Amino acid sequence: MNRPRLDDRLADLEADGYLIDASQEDANQLYLSGFTGPDPFLTLYADGEVHVLVSGLEYGRATAEATADTVERHADYGYEYGGREARNDMYAEFVRDKGVDSVSMPPRGPVGTADALRDRGIDVAVDTDDRLREVRAVKTDEEIDAIREAQRANEAAMRAAEELIAGADVAGEDAEVGDAEPGVLLHEGEPLTSERVAEEIEVTLLRHGCALDETIVAGGAQAADPHDRGSGPLRANEAIIVDIFPRSKATKYNADMTRTFCVGEPSEALREWYELTGRALDAALDAVEPGATGEDVHAAACEVYEEAGEPTFRTDPETETGFIHSTGHGIGLDVHESPRLANGGEALEPGHVITVEPGLYDPEVGGVRIEDLVVVTEDGHENLTDYPIRFAAE
Amino acid sequence: MNRPRLDDRLADLEADGYLIDASQEDANQLYLSGFTGPDPFLTLYADGEVHVLVSGLEYGRATAEATADTVERHADYGYEYGGREARNDMYAEFVRDKGVDSVSMPPRGPVGTADALRDRGIDVAVDTDDRLREVRAVKTDEEIDAIREAQRANEAAMRAAEELIAGADVAGEDAEVGDAEPGVLLHEGEPLTSERVAEEIEVTLLRHGCALDETIVAGGAQAADPHDRGSGPLRANEAIIVDIFPRSKATKYNADMTRTFCVGEPSEALREWYELTGRALDAALDAVEPGATGEDVHAAACEVYEEAGEPTFRTDPETETGFIHSTGHGIGLDVHESPRLANGGEALEPGHVITVEPGLYDPEVGGVRIEDLVVVTEDGHENLTDYPIRFAAE
Repeated sequence: MNRPRLDDRLADLEADGYLIDASQEDANQLYLSGFTGPDPFLTLYADGEVHVLVSGLEYGRATAEATADTVERHADYGYEYGGREARNDMYAEFVRDKGVDSVSMPPRGPVGTADALRDRGIDVAVDTDDRLREVRAVKTDEEIDAIREAQRANEAAMRAAEELIAGADVAGEDAEVGDAEPGVLLHEGEPLTSERVAEEIEVTLLRHGCALDETIVAGGAQAADPHDRGSGPLRANEAIIVDIFPRSKATKYNADMTRTFCVGEPSEALREWYELTGRALDAALDAVEPGATGEDVHAAACEVYEEAGEPTFRTDPETETGFIHSTGHGIGLDVHESPRLANGGEALEPGHVITVEPGLYDPEVGGVRIEDLVVVTEDGHENLTDYPIRFAAE
Repeated sequence: MNRPRLDDRLADLEADGYLIDASQEDANQLYLSGFTGPDPFLTLYADGEVHVLVSGLEYGRATAEATADTVERHADYGYEYGGREARNDMYAEFVRDKGVDSVSMPPRGPVGTADALRDRGIDVAVDTDDRLREVRAVKTDEEIDAIREAQRANEAAMRAAEELIAGADVAGEDAEVGDAEPGVLLHEGEPLTSERVAEEIEVTLLRHGCALDETIVAGGAQAADPHDRGSGPLRANEAIIVDIFPRSKATKYNADMTRTFCVGEPSEALREWYELTGRALDAALDAVEPGATGEDVHAAACEVYEEAGEPTFRTDPETETGFIHSTGHGIGLDVHESPRLANGGEALEPGHVITVEPGLYDPEVGGVRIEDLVVVTEDGHENLTDYPIRFAAE
């Protein structure tokens, strides 16, 4: 945790304290408490100190693990399980015990707790800036190392996926492979599906200490929907997007990388898209430096596409083909966090870890996306990605 | 989704509508919308219809996937990315467009959205009962089948874990295995660790279409903390708790099962605990039927332990040894949901899917827990678990 930055950003709060009620699945909570509690618990920042309140069942683990200054348990406030109202009374007592009569909560904090504290005379304001999210955006060296380590696992998984795709046979008109249509990729005589490649990716990630949320392995028209996870048999001559975003089980930090592969002969259109997207990536990476905004980086990618006549959200906000998403996003404890590389995107600062991921989409052609992971440095950026960029799977 | 039950429970709302602002990670959202959106989106129940509002990027997938009656996109309200206030304006417009001037939100709904709607003249109340949670507690046959299927994957993973443990060698005083202390379990000449067994479990789950959150493989004193996930070498003659709660990637429903194993010679105390816990499990299962409360089932388990002189939260609310957790919990889209098998636990109804999981804990002795997964039926319960209960790993 970047404690000086945290103290600095919370110094001008109009409230006495900053309150989080969430489980470890909330990145603000995990960041501020340092505790991987599976059930919601309270963390209160007040007077420069961080206080955690957990159930008796979590107390032992919380005292060992939390980076907070103090850890208390429900029993310290005389609470056993006694229903909702008694629990809210305990929460108010905990807050007041720290000399706090007014708190700020993140926008996604629970309204039930906010209103219950209000009912008990504690003033609750919404921190619409989501300051902790801003604090989290700038990483310490330790956090960058954690992301770097997750990215190594990511590269091993991408390697496993690429090998599976590159090693596939292609069903021909006369292939002796049951029902497989001509052009379908075959692995050990069976159709090679998105699901099979995703499973290989996920098993590889597990072997490298990473958990996973979703993995995208999408070919053909499926790849033209950037959020389609992909399903069914993969085919030759089509573009196959592989987008992997693993999370380290030890550190909880994420990595993110996309490559697009082809087996056989891509169409002329796909070839052009791949080349264009490589240039858009380079242009965007060149624009990454402190002082540049997320909007500047996005513009650099858009310009490459627009000059080639491809639609973007800048030239047509309603387009459903072309470059139809932002150029990238911050990454850390959340897969998607600040800053945004898009219209309105914030100024980049050293320590921002971001993805840069231009792409082109059209169901008639397919989808192409190439994504690297970089950290903003004092004089530009360092690319944390160590994986070749090539269309033909090897 | 149990639509009649939903309509019934939402019929007496004092508000015009019921609003959820969350991603698919929120079980209420996934249940009501039927959409696996990775970013927060709105779902509004009003006048017996379910309306979903998503970004343009998610629109295609949402129309294909959501079980909602209508799916709209941000552009339908003239919104592109325009910052927080414009987004809140769009949310208010969407709500009003459905004829709704007052909404109820679940307790863990975001305070930022609640306050923003209030600022725009929409009345927001907190549904302190969390009605959707109550609706979700009673499963349809389709939901029960989904849990059953996840439980089959769970059994395959438990089998893989038990085989690894049963097949282990034990390092002796004169063992030629590097640094392994006497008594440490060995797999292929290396110490068998909690992490190694967990990895085997997780890979097996993946091969069976399940994702995973955490897995517990905890031996010796670690097993005495019910939430300790376990780490480092496992040893002979100690109790090893294996607790697996996988989630089907296709259906998103969870299963849950715990077994406790021993290699070698457990102490007399551990033997007694294992036998007692088996009896507590049987007593609790016997108590599961419609009309009985979660408190009744918990009492049945507690009585077995209390008669044997073991402390429970009923005899000593502050005890840190003995039976120090509830007897079980509902399970579905969340691993932990209603009803609770604990003091104050609700009446059981047919269709409730619950875990029954008594256990005993003391760092001086270790930990023993046995957990089955059952569904409450019209005349008792059906045990969804198909895995032997035996202390000696085979």
